[in-house]
Amino acid sequence: MADPIDFYFDFSSPYAYLTVFRVDALAARHGRSVNWRPYLLGIAARTTGIPPLAEIPMINDYTARDVPRCARALNVPFAWPTPFPVAAVAASRAYYWLHDRDPDQAKAVAVGLFSAYFAEGRDIGAPEVVVDVAAFAGVDRASLTDALASAPVKERLRRETEQAVARGVFGSPFFIVDGESFWGSDRMEQMERWLASGGW
Amino acid sequence: MADPIDFYFDFSSPYAYLTVFRVDALAARHGRSVNWRPYLLGIAARTTGIPPLAEIPMINDYTARDVPRCARALNVPFAWPTPFPVAAVAASRAYYWLHDRDPDQAKAVAVGLFSAYFAEGRDIGAPEVVVDVAAFAGVDRASLTDALASAPVKERLRRETEQAVARGVFGSPFFIVDGESFWGSDRMEQMERWLASGGW
Repeated sequence: MADPIDFYFDFSSPYAYLTVFRVDALAARHGRSVNWRPYLLGIAARTTGIPPLAEIPMINDYTARDVPRCARALNVPFAWPTPFPVAAVAASRAYYWLHDRDPDQAKAVAVGLFSAYFAEGRDIGAPEVVVDVAAFAGVDRASLTDALASAPVKERLRRETEQAVARGVFGSPFFIVDGESFWGSDRMEQMERWLASGGW
Repeated sequence: MADPIDFYFDFSSPYAYLTVFRVDALAARHGRSVNWRPYLLGIAARTTGIPPLAEIPMINDYTARDVPRCARALNVPFAWPTPFPVAAVAASRAYYWLHDRDPDQAKAVAVGLFSAYFAEGRDIGAPEVVVDVAAFAGVDRASLTDALASAPVKERLRRETEQAVARGVFGSPFFIVDGESFWGSDRMEQMERWLASGGW
């Protein structure tokens, strides 16, 4: 089977949210699976020097309108959450811990976290909200709460963020497939064309 | 008649190049005209603090592949020019001087300049190349050469760049229509949807 698509994102990224409902279906149409790889864009920025673009004031004024416009075009429910952005530390740690146990459940929780934040305005920066969302998907509260504070889980997220930067990842969403990079929700069509044609 | 679309760009911007063959046709489908408004992104960056993104090394590695990929998707001829980027001072001054005399000719020369740079690799940073391209479109060489060094023409470009920044323009291409902003060649479909629906 062909290699999976690596899908890098920060849980605080609205443009990543706009892709989570369709990235696996897109990949499946071309016999691919998707590795979801949350990382911390703000931490990565310390190395790359590239700030999360949506946090630059002048660009933020633009994205304030662009994100809802994109969401409407995709029929994805969206409302700007408060606070924005959030530190996605707990959400990302939860993802990796779950992933090593049940990858499908991990993705379900990830989509749940994105929806909680961008459709329902719940503060996923708070560990207890992350646990609530995961519990709704059947995850044991006590085990997850312990995991969020465990050294190996912390180290895992640190390493994933470092590796993302080492691979040239600097934004969210950011896809790598067969060595080819695609940055942004607005590059999904080109990624699909790439997959369909075997590169062009 | 409905207000025109303001189309801001830097002649050194490959993503702007990807739009110049279709922006007027898009506008015309919705009863609009287009004001082409070249400005100097590098000068604007001194005020906005936002550098031309394609010049950030890590992003540049990405755009090195993304631009040709986008060009292939659009069937637009493209090859990375050398040097890149160039200072589009002469090209932009030529545009405004021509515009005040013959707007259609100004656009024809603008498209010629983009093609000279991104399809033929000619250095449009050089005033003599700008004059060559304009002359091919029927512009008098001596008059244009004088204009490129004239104080009012220099001042015009300075003012246009200042006004672009004052309106919140920070990228290229950047479109404003009826107060709504669209940034990037990848937002043309949304701009068209906006025009078709009267805002949504």
